[in-house]
Amino acid sequence: MTVAQEVARYAVNATLDDAPAAVHHEALRSILNWLGCALGGSRHAAVERALAAVLPFSGGSQCTLLGRPEQVDPLHAALLNGMSAHVLDFDDTHLRTLLHPSVPVASALLNGMSAHVLDFDDTHLRTLLHPSVPVASALLALAERERMSGPDFLASFIVGVEIECRIANAIWFAHNSHWYITGTAGVFGAAAAAARAMQLDEQQTTHALGLACAQAAGTREMAGTMAKCFIHGRAAQNGLFAALLAQQGFTAADTSLEGPHGFAQVLASERDVAAITAGLGTRYEILSNSYKPFACGVVAHPVIDACLELRTAHLLRPADIERVELMVNPRALELTGIKSPPNGLKSKWSIYHSAAVALADGAAGEHQYTDERVNDPAVRVLRESIGATADAGLAEIAARVKVTMKDGTVHTQVVDRVTGSAENPMSDTALEAKVSGLAQGVLSQSQVAKLIAQCWRLMESSDAAELARCATPA
Amino acid sequence: MTVAQEVARYAVNATLDDAPAAVHHEALRSILNWLGCALGGSRHAAVERALAAVLPFSGGSQCTLLGRPEQVDPLHAALLNGMSAHVLDFDDTHLRTLLHPSVPVASALLNGMSAHVLDFDDTHLRTLLHPSVPVASALLALAERERMSGPDFLASFIVGVEIECRIANAIWFAHNSHWYITGTAGVFGAAAAAARAMQLDEQQTTHALGLACAQAAGTREMAGTMAKCFIHGRAAQNGLFAALLAQQGFTAADTSLEGPHGFAQVLASERDVAAITAGLGTRYEILSNSYKPFACGVVAHPVIDACLELRTAHLLRPADIERVELMVNPRALELTGIKSPPNGLKSKWSIYHSAAVALADGAAGEHQYTDERVNDPAVRVLRESIGATADAGLAEIAARVKVTMKDGTVHTQVVDRVTGSAENPMSDTALEAKVSGLAQGVLSQSQVAKLIAQCWRLMESSDAAELARCATPA
Repeated sequence: MTVAQEVARYAVNATLDDAPAAVHHEALRSILNWLGCALGGSRHAAVERALAAVLPFSGGSQCTLLGRPEQVDPLHAALLNGMSAHVLDFDDTHLRTLLHPSVPVASALLNGMSAHVLDFDDTHLRTLLHPSVPVASALLALAERERMSGPDFLASFIVGVEIECRIANAIWFAHNSHWYITGTAGVFGAAAAAARAMQLDEQQTTHALGLACAQAAGTREMAGTMAKCFIHGRAAQNGLFAALLAQQGFTAADTSLEGPHGFAQVLASERDVAAITAGLGTRYEILSNSYKPFACGVVAHPVIDACLELRTAHLLRPADIERVELMVNPRALELTGIKSPPNGLKSKWSIYHSAAVALADGAAGEHQYTDERVNDPAVRVLRESIGATADAGLAEIAARVKVTMKDGTVHTQVVDRVTGSAENPMSDTALEAKVSGLAQGVLSQSQVAKLIAQCWRLMESSDAAELARCATPA
Repeated sequence: MTVAQEVARYAVNATLDDAPAAVHHEALRSILNWLGCALGGSRHAAVERALAAVLPFSGGSQCTLLGRPEQVDPLHAALLNGMSAHVLDFDDTHLRTLLHPSVPVASALLNGMSAHVLDFDDTHLRTLLHPSVPVASALLALAERERMSGPDFLASFIVGVEIECRIANAIWFAHNSHWYITGTAGVFGAAAAAARAMQLDEQQTTHALGLACAQAAGTREMAGTMAKCFIHGRAAQNGLFAALLAQQGFTAADTSLEGPHGFAQVLASERDVAAITAGLGTRYEILSNSYKPFACGVVAHPVIDACLELRTAHLLRPADIERVELMVNPRALELTGIKSPPNGLKSKWSIYHSAAVALADGAAGEHQYTDERVNDPAVRVLRESIGATADAGLAEIAARVKVTMKDGTVHTQVVDRVTGSAENPMSDTALEAKVSGLAQGVLSQSQVAKLIAQCWRLMESSDAAELARCATPA
């Protein structure tokens, strides 16, 4: 059997009962986080412009655009919901715990992969795959086209995430320097999930995986442009299209993953193909999914955690603060060292702005990284009172913050394990709050509450498309 | 200026009058050949199955599928016409005359690129780009959506072909071993042509090129499956989509071609980026386009030429033939050495079958490579009477054929420069005959004549979409 055939066999046969309850729960958390991100991104200019481009060509089987009144066909819905859910850079991230470093991984780590690209800390490596965008966006469109039960949606979601994360595991260390891995590996996840939901057989599913390979795309040159979220949404759309073609008997190579001109060979300078199928169906990658609590570069998160703690514990008021000192891992300063960000987008890469809004607003959500907050006089004064020092003794998931008040009082806070890390994941309650914050101005509070409840009870739902209806503005 | 900005400036400003008449004429020949290939491929199972998959989602602005009664939206029309035009492997091929071998090209040639991959002979290198499929398929869909004059179609076609051929020139030598270059470079041609036809400005066109880069895909692992023609059609569709997004202000990187994570850097192990803009607008790559006279692997073509000559000159009848000896370049035997092909598809890679049908039918078109012709008793007897010898002294564009008749007569024929080579291109009349043969069973003879006439007079047409209407079955 080829690797794709093994993967297809798993996709066809996997049931919800095979997976433990913890997997079901993590899948629901992933879907909830995805819904929130899509609502938060739904009014972004990238989504508006892409919608304007596709509306004239949308046909049949109208599907929901999360958080918007317009409807489009399933393929374009997968694209646009995927774009919405990624455009804020607030969606989930797959953490790859390197239990058994294989030779190619170790060699790639030693040879030329920079820390910046690897995005790793002492204990964790991130594949940088955003698992939910391709898979959930493809599945929701399908659920609106053909009746799909909640359990079927969830089982197909888990299948898609497992497959894309495993493909990411096989290549990320020798791939991420050039490619957006959600564009390249994510399309396989969307294809596999859609194939399972459509009840394709093993051969058709193998072809769908091959057609995913034929569409794997997206280079990192697109950073900082709308094309980045396009690459992510396209993974959802292309994966869904792969399954729709395979359903009609359209063929592709069975050796798409390991063949001499296949995905792993062509899109990575080294590879660990065995990682794709090792433990498939018994060890679950979705348990290594993580969610960002704050809408900015992840290395700034420990400082935000500390500032929020300080604000709550001491009822700090910005006007009373004399100065703030941040002590962080060197990489945090390297990546988020913008002292005076010129606009909202750039402020996501300013640890100073992040600390300022955390202290001023008690939050670091999407609304804290707007042009308006960047230019707010009080935020600016506070930001200018903040200094930062790199300390190689601090892990990337840690930070120390010292606040000196105008009355001379000094408050300090140490964070060892940032919220959202594997050691300290976001709680369900915190996820719900994140979703509510993202939905602000898009759905009413009662609509958000209904959507969240609907998501948690997905396993009891006879119609997964109810999620889409709950996410439509009144 | 970035390379994409230079390219965009050319695309925006190029007029039909800038190009010499020879360029106009070669563009018309390319478009005619593309129309014929699309008609010939229009009933292929790959097209049927893809159409079944997309029909439920096709919306608005109905466009023609060449040779078919169904209509679909412009994006899907670009996809399906592109697939039809490539599925028979009968479309055009860009010949890159290596006038000034640059350092990366020479080094790639010396280091590990096999002759098989390079597909070169003594005087020519082929980029293996099929120029017309992405560009013409995207433009025709657009011409049916928005009024486009013949001259506008032609000028945009030339722009698209120049840009994709030049991008191909920059990378093919260190790219083709893994990628289908029409999938990867072709999408830029489609984007540029559509951008010009839509009158996008330089910034929008630069973004369209960036969005092409974001979608560049298609690895060679898909050889021998339907996914291969899908990759080619997708280049047309994705390029058109890139221009439609850019028209709405959707952004992408300006450095898509030369950037550190851009196209040339990521999709080729070596590159000659200067080749993209050198002589742009003064030296025309379309003059190096070539057309296959026969529907099989190109290395078998000299033998076919010789057999057709012999058959005509001596009024040969298959039943009178005792045995046939073919003397060919070693690579012809390596690539088309299948002695007893099991089916029509495989017979395209049998020099024995090619010689047999040329002698028996006086033709080597699509109808000669069917299961029926492979299993025909007379063809089989003739095929089994044919032997072949490799002779390294023969160029790839040459062959010698010796036919011994049952009465002892011996006829020999030498071909030095095969039809379809740069030295002996197909004549306009031969191209017309090829198109007529491909349209057989799809359009009536009078319809084909009208289509061919319409193509030749494209420069006088006020509505390029007339081509599509002429290519619709009655």
